[in-house]
Amino acid sequence: MTYQPGTTGVVVQNIERVSLEIVDGLAELGCATVHEAQGRKGLLASYMRPIYAGARVAGNALTILAPPMDNWMIHVAIEQLKAGDILVLGTTSPSDAGYFGDLLATSAQAHGCRGLVIDGGVRDVADLTQMSFPVWSKAVGSQGTIKETLGSVNVPVVCAGELVNPGDVIVADDDGVVCVRREEAAEVLEKARARVANEEAKRARFAKGELGLDIYKMRERLAEKGLKYV
Amino acid sequence: MTYQPGTTGVVVQNIERVSLEIVDGLAELGCATVHEAQGRKGLLASYMRPIYAGARVAGNALTILAPPMDNWMIHVAIEQLKAGDILVLGTTSPSDAGYFGDLLATSAQAHGCRGLVIDGGVRDVADLTQMSFPVWSKAVGSQGTIKETLGSVNVPVVCAGELVNPGDVIVADDDGVVCVRREEAAEVLEKARARVANEEAKRARFAKGELGLDIYKMRERLAEKGLKYV
Amino acid sequence: MTYQPGTTGVVVQNIERVSLEIVDGLAELGCATVHEAQGRKGLLASYMRPIYAGARVAGNALTILAPPMDNWMIHVAIEQLKAGDILVLGTTSPSDAGYFGDLLATSAQAHGCRGLVIDGGVRDVADLTQMSFPVWSKAVGSQGTIKETLGSVNVPVVCAGELVNPGDVIVADDDGVVCVRREEAAEVLEKARARVANEEAKRARFAKGELGLDIYKMRERLAEKGLKYV
Amino acid sequence: MTYQPGTTGVVVQNIERVSLEIVDGLAELGCATVHEAQGRKGLLASYMRPIYAGARVAGNALTILAPPMDNWMIHVAIEQLKAGDILVLGTTSPSDAGYFGDLLATSAQAHGCRGLVIDGGVRDVADLTQMSFPVWSKAVGSQGTIKETLGSVNVPVVCAGELVNPGDVIVADDDGVVCVRREEAAEVLEKARARVANEEAKRARFAKGELGLDIYKMRERLAEKGLKYV
Amino acid sequence: MTYQPGTTGVVVQNIERVSLEIVDGLAELGCATVHEAQGRKGLLASYMRPIYAGARVAGNALTILAPPMDNWMIHVAIEQLKAGDILVLGTTSPSDAGYFGDLLATSAQAHGCRGLVIDGGVRDVADLTQMSFPVWSKAVGSQGTIKETLGSVNVPVVCAGELVNPGDVIVADDDGVVCVRREEAAEVLEKARARVANEEAKRARFAKGELGLDIYKMRERLAEKGLKYV
Amino acid sequence: MTYQPGTTGVVVQNIERVSLEIVDGLAELGCATVHEAQGRKGLLASYMRPIYAGARVAGNALTILAPPMDNWMIHVAIEQLKAGDILVLGTTSPSDAGYFGDLLATSAQAHGCRGLVIDGGVRDVADLTQMSFPVWSKAVGSQGTIKETLGSVNVPVVCAGELVNPGDVIVADDDGVVCVRREEAAEVLEKARARVANEEAKRARFAKGELGLDIYKMRERLAEKGLKYV
Repeated sequence: MTYQPGTTGVVVQNIERVSLEIVDGLAELGCATVHEAQGRKGLLASYMRPIYAGARVAGNALTILAPPMDNWMIHVAIEQLKAGDILVLGTTSPSDAGYFGDLLATSAQAHGCRGLVIDGGVRDVADLTQMSFPVWSKAVGSQGTIKETLGSVNVPVVCAGELVNPGDVIVADDDGVVCVRREEAAEVLEKARARVANEEAKRARFAKGELGLDIYKMRERLAEKGLKYV
Repeated sequence: MTYQPGTTGVVVQNIERVSLEIVDGLAELGCATVHEAQGRKGLLASYMRPIYAGARVAGNALTILAPPMDNWMIHVAIEQLKAGDILVLGTTSPSDAGYFGDLLATSAQAHGCRGLVIDGGVRDVADLTQMSFPVWSKAVGSQGTIKETLGSVNVPVVCAGELVNPGDVIVADDDGVVCVRREEAAEVLEKARARVANEEAKRARFAKGELGLDIYKMRERLAEKGLKYV
Repeated sequence: MTYQPGTTGVVVQNIERVSLEIVDGLAELGCATVHEAQGRKGLLASYMRPIYAGARVAGNALTILAPPMDNWMIHVAIEQLKAGDILVLGTTSPSDAGYFGDLLATSAQAHGCRGLVIDGGVRDVADLTQMSFPVWSKAVGSQGTIKETLGSVNVPVVCAGELVNPGDVIVADDDGVVCVRREEAAEVLEKARARVANEEAKRARFAKGELGLDIYKMRERLAEKGLKYV
Repeated sequence: MTYQPGTTGVVVQNIERVSLEIVDGLAELGCATVHEAQGRKGLLASYMRPIYAGARVAGNALTILAPPMDNWMIHVAIEQLKAGDILVLGTTSPSDAGYFGDLLATSAQAHGCRGLVIDGGVRDVADLTQMSFPVWSKAVGSQGTIKETLGSVNVPVVCAGELVNPGDVIVADDDGVVCVRREEAAEVLEKARARVANEEAKRARFAKGELGLDIYKMRERLAEKGLKYV
Repeated sequence: MTYQPGTTGVVVQNIERVSLEIVDGLAELGCATVHEAQGRKGLLASYMRPIYAGARVAGNALTILAPPMDNWMIHVAIEQLKAGDILVLGTTSPSDAGYFGDLLATSAQAHGCRGLVIDGGVRDVADLTQMSFPVWSKAVGSQGTIKETLGSVNVPVVCAGELVNPGDVIVADDDGVVCVRREEAAEVLEKARARVANEEAKRARFAKGELGLDIYKMRERLAEKGLKYV
Repeated sequence: MTYQPGTTGVVVQNIERVSLEIVDGLAELGCATVHEAQGRKGLLASYMRPIYAGARVAGNALTILAPPMDNWMIHVAIEQLKAGDILVLGTTSPSDAGYFGDLLATSAQAHGCRGLVIDGGVRDVADLTQMSFPVWSKAVGSQGTIKETLGSVNVPVVCAGELVNPGDVIVADDDGVVCVRREEAAEVLEKARARVANEEAKRARFAKGELGLDIYKMRERLAEKGLKYV
């Protein structure tokens, strides 16, 4: 059964995931390449920033819908983690509170979690950095949270302007976060690999000084559009 | 005598401070822990960010009220510094000008200052980083400032949405900035230490894979609220 | 001939540049000093941030006017690069799309480009960091761009709230980005060097504990304005 | 067949809609009441504001996915309008360009359209106001748009942080915009009507001076939580 | 006894207020004049906007500290209202939820409340407008709130960047919101009236075409500063 | 002589203006039409909003460069007004202070000024509305300003992201503000009139139910791009 985004009070326990072989393949290619390879869709808003530079991960999305300033559902979600998952948290109303810190990261990591993507705040970032637990968030904030109101686990959530379904693949690095639909992950990986191979060839030509104008044969179309050199 | 926030034209010379033993104790514990230990209050807005990662300091607040794009009062404030102080600057109207740079940092450091918390802009951040002079600011900006209008030193100021009294304790790290009332500092330190001890025990249990659901005995209350597993 | 900002469909091929001796001199001094030395003008908005810390460059502005989410004109611009240039991109309407990545950086670097200042988004920031290709941008974003609509190369552009003419000098570092008019560059360099010399002397006095109040003889004027010590 | 959000190049022609009797019932009740009645979900972000005060409408969502600054798909969408529809536009990347003006409104109105909800800009607002064509938008902007790139019509879109499926019901007034799932519309109407009836009774008691503390019997629970009167 | 800002769990029942004669005098003069008359302090941030144009009110501040998305304390506060009060709500963490609507306004108005100043969201704005119940808020939002966590009533709060003490006078109109300290209200009224009288005389001279340059005798000082006419 | 944007300390007294016949012609057509007619350039950022709905004006730009929170230069500028001018104010650093109120409006109106476009704050908006003195601003704010630092009058300024030269034509209405270069004003008026005539014909066809798809012959190109109807 599929739940609508916004459904509260539900924990979906058995979700379909993408094989880690495919997930790991996507991780190697990174956010920008995967985004291009799947037709330029799936990007989360650019306000989502990593807490430290240099991380590049992919994982199956374990989704959390949380009320503002209430992190109860994260505890519920951790029990549902499988190795290779990434927690993805959307809120029912905007908040920059610090939903997640080093204790939760310790717990999540112990259950195989590869990182967190949160449309809210995170804290203990020095500890998380030391633990190599990567987080992409809207804010760094220490505001303590409560445990009073139900949200859901593994219903579709809107996170930073993008719909994420449980079991979709999340690819995140210094460039941001992209979501790949579960059903399309294998095909996207293939296309992304082809894209990288093609880019390697291009990079060599660019490094030698060849121009994009020539490599991509743009001069004629620019002239047709009326570009004037003066 | 106590001045109202917003009072201009006044320098309060003798303020009460918290002993550095307590201040240093709070520094060790960091922003998020101290914030929790004092009942989740005192946080500055999450737009206050450090200019470099890894700093963790605490100090007695020496407060500055400054007009937009006017840093005259910082010079006045530096004369009032005592070892262990942190400068805290609020403005009479928002500004992202660069109020503070390496010369002022050199001067402040020579007078025992441990850092700056500024609801405005800072510049020379490469130099400040090299000097290990930590700053939490709303912006990095080079816009030069003037010296034309009076503000105040050591009156209460609103900085990033939080009231800071002179002599309150500021605790700041990668997670942000929290203000501890002077009168409560000793008690907050005690509570924060207890909290850390408690967290250590929890961390060990989380690391072994125990769930927050069990550690915090959440399952019953979640069921009462109606959470459904499907 | 001079074009108005906003003119589209034009590539100006031969622009006057400032000698690299002067440009390199400005680079050494950095954004804040140059901004002060030229009378506190020319700063780009403080939302322009470097993709990695520690870069400090200067270059002749090669300007690009680009439609939102369309990076066609960057290819056109790269052909116009001369050693020592910095690409400066303004848009006809705001966008945080990822106009520029590692392939374009490879191409630009092969043609002598020293960096990019972009009132939009950039991607592949891990690669750009590894290449030591510095970028100051409004956003990091992976959103793919198209090649459909003409803009211009080397017309004046407004970038982050500041007018940049082709051939003006851009100075950028961790503090931000400042634009120096081509005609004024030599004079600004001279003034900036004088300023630095003066600052060195001041720094030594500050480090010894002398106060700005005394060094700048502020006490009398503060008293005249009515500052009260209590 | 159901399409994923973000799918481009598709026009879904026959979507299921909610009967206008139900839609009109929801319109009478307004955004806040409907939002509460459906369990406090479905709200679009509060940055969505009406172009004039006093409008209150509901309609079946005819969804548009559009590239930034490209309004081609609106023309495609208008052909798909049925009486009682509201156009709902999400973008593939943020934009505040003026996608929609009085000509398109004339066309849409001629095909039975009741209004527009757009995560972008709108223009000709004086004309639209005079036409009584209500619009909720992120921005008022005159920036002209192009017709170059395909989006989609009647695929699910994320608009202002909320997923909207084609055929969902949109309810909008001065308080904002809420989306009701098509399958739940009848039930939500019933609940919302019950809520209004209940509110009428409450309003009379409040007007006489009775306190919420007593009407909702809050005093005991507040005391349990530890509220102190001093 | 005085409570610190941020104190939760307390309702202060008997606060000192300013006589309504003075309050009403301030209302007539409006936000900008009162702000000037008290030395240009006390302004709330400019993001606080009225829900309808044309309201001008003043009242004694009855302050509320509320958790994000939790309006429980408003019910508690209404019992404390006296005729001539204005509710002023600050939050413990930012929120744009709809804390207040027509039912609460009915209740507050029945207890003599003149309006609401809220660093959060408000809903039912069409109803509130019809009731002539003025509100200045950060957002219009329908997001429903809960009643789970204690805040306080009549402790000092920071609202939109300004400290407001219980019993301070709030003056609000289309220009925004200003806070006058209780102890200074009588004196500020006097100064503001003098200012208005002076402005009337100036207005007549301006209307006849006299220049500010002459009325304020600015020409000499401008020349001294070096202003050049070319 | 032409001054660079950012030049301070200068008042240019005799600027060339566009004849009021042309200016008035542009006013009739409005911001969006004029923007389109001049090739979609010249728009100020969409954050510039009118203080009241329904104004539509055009005028010759009398430009002001002002420091943050300092309105001295407005007094200087008013002496330079000629009938049909609009004041356009840019700042040397961002500010939302209230630079302009009813006294300055009285003075400006007495000298033939038609309105104000200000990249900052304005106050006394109720009075300005009653006077029918239209203002487009970034903010409404009461923060008082000072008169301490020189800016300039009639040098080019960047206002809301757009360069405005003295004597350019400003056209502003509910849709925003557009700047027309002085040299192009006559030609733009002609093109804009042609555009309106063309739009009238289109409007009639749209009102009858004809589709943009047919009127603009879009179907073939959409098919070529690959649009699929399902």
